Amino acid sequence: MDLKQYLDFTAKQVDLMIDRFFGSEFEELGKASAHILMAGGKRLRPAVVMLAADAVRKGSSDEVMSAALALELTHCFTLIHDDIMDEDSFRRGVPTVHTKWDEPTAILAGDVLYARSFDFICKTRAPDQAKVRAVSMLAEACVDICRGQHMDMSFEKRNDVTEGEYLDMVSKKTGVLYAAAAGIGSILAGGNAVQTSALYHYGLYTGMAFQIQDDVIDIVASAEKSGKDRASDIREGKQTLISIRAREKGLDLSPYCRDLSDNEIEQVITLLNNAGVIDGVKETARELVSKGNQIISILPDSQEKMLLIEIGDYFVTRGH
Amino acid sequence: MDLKQYLDFTAKQVDLMIDRFFGSEFEELGKASAHILMAGGKRLRPAVVMLAADAVRKGSSDEVMSAALALELTHCFTLIHDDIMDEDSFRRGVPTVHTKWDEPTAILAGDVLYARSFDFICKTRAPDQAKVRAVSMLAEACVDICRGQHMDMSFEKRNDVTEGEYLDMVSKKTGVLYAAAAGIGSILAGGNAVQTSALYHYGLYTGMAFQIQDDVIDIVASAEKSGKDRASDIREGKQTLISIRAREKGLDLSPYCRDLSDNEIEQVITLLNNAGVIDGVKETARELVSKGNQIISILPDSQEKMLLIEIGDYFVTRGH
Repeated sequence: MDLKQYLDFTAKQVDLMIDRFFGSEFEELGKASAHILMAGGKRLRPAVVMLAADAVRKGSSDEVMSAALALELTHCFTLIHDDIMDEDSFRRGVPTVHTKWDEPTAILAGDVLYARSFDFICKTRAPDQAKVRAVSMLAEACVDICRGQHMDMSFEKRNDVTEGEYLDMVSKKTGVLYAAAAGIGSILAGGNAVQTSALYHYGLYTGMAFQIQDDVIDIVASAEKSGKDRASDIREGKQTLISIRAREKGLDLSPYCRDLSDNEIEQVITLLNNAGVIDGVKETARELVSKGNQIISILPDSQEKMLLIEIGDYFVTRGH
Repeated sequence: MDLKQYLDFTAKQVDLMIDRFFGSEFEELGKASAHILMAGGKRLRPAVVMLAADAVRKGSSDEVMSAALALELTHCFTLIHDDIMDEDSFRRGVPTVHTKWDEPTAILAGDVLYARSFDFICKTRAPDQAKVRAVSMLAEACVDICRGQHMDMSFEKRNDVTEGEYLDMVSKKTGVLYAAAAGIGSILAGGNAVQTSALYHYGLYTGMAFQIQDDVIDIVASAEKSGKDRASDIREGKQTLISIRAREKGLDLSPYCRDLSDNEIEQVITLLNNAGVIDGVKETARELVSKGNQIISILPDSQEKMLLIEIGDYFVTRGH
């Protein structure tokens, strides 16, 4: 099975569970909780939970399905709350929860998924000791995600964010949930401390690379492919690895912090390309993926280990 | 030790833990998370956790201190999010989090406490099996609290809420967290299924009585004593057991749904008293407390069981 087939297969399994547990909500709050969850999504974090489990103990992915779902719920809860904070109107092709309902309902809808994440960890077929460690790991990841989101928002008021600060934010906002996905998969499948730590860090670096690639996609991909307005980060003056590196190289992007024509976007890309910024940022993402792949080389060889490595490669090549 | 001494004693223990874990936050988000938590509070839920633990196994309250703290964190997270939804500016004598910081920070501050609640359950000195059950119980309580808050908000648009709907809302919004406090104390201390169920339901009924008494206090107590503007529920046309019973008795409170003078508040109280509404509602609260006390009569006699019974009595007599 290649990566695409595997991701399609696991996404279907997760979708079935989502449908089973959230498909027949009839109260408004239940519907609001299920809204983004049922609007599709690639279910990448559940796939990482399952692959990590199988990579430490072949055949254990079936047992950790509840935890795989839990990670998707956590991801979805952060999306619902982030959309309120960022005042975004659309997500996965549907109106965001606070747009379709209202802000109080969206806060509560996120809170419901949050609680159910922890409950689904407890529902996993695994030793209690492993479940307790998994709950702790997820809880710590959630605290970090909140910190990352808060840092990201605070960056909006600044124009002097350093690369170190940016990478710290990305590791928290995006990295730790992939880290927790891989770490929890390992813990619940009975992975030892070395395996769990390796998978955790694999997830951390791979997740960071995912976010950095997102920043590249925002600029170089067409709006159709990225699913959002092209170069929105530049137009909004967002602090990303691209804008930070551009600043370090003396490139002033501030004149482009406004509505841009396609022509002007091409101008910016040319500027960034000539300064080697885009290639440099892509290289950083690739290095993170390599680091992650290197770390899990300690795992016994298996198809799942190969797929984990392929996921990293997919993260930094998607959007091209 | 009488109830007051016991509550003072446990509140001090909880305050010490709060100071230890949240007293030296230096990032803004950390400070925002700690803000309401450190602004005081009676720490009633932690006291219930500790009493329930000691009631099933004398001396176990020390072991469940982390879980006691967890329940206070959960309570605090709901306060922070509720204050955003209800647009309240003050809480425990200090500005609410979204007022002192902003709404995004308040959403995240609540989310941080939410995650840490589950982590503190895992940090308890108890068998892993008990911790897993406690995490599940807390998660289910959180889902119910969200449902209760959503129902409460939906009631604002209605004038036909039934007593059954109101009691369902109160059981979710306030009852289940007391239920979880008592149930979790029992589970973590090794209480058997019958004891845990008894303590859970004790908490449920006692918590409901607490909320109903709050509605009584809003009307009959002076603003100084209740800590909020007098008769605010009547002035805002809120659906409470008092307004529902008044409606059932043919009393029209809608002319009082506006700013009221002290004289007019006395008029409403006289109306409600003459119709027997306030006495009837007080009686309902007392009946719930009796039901809770009756249920825990199956526990072996102990000072802690007596204190649990006294807590119920305190809930329905406070504010007078």
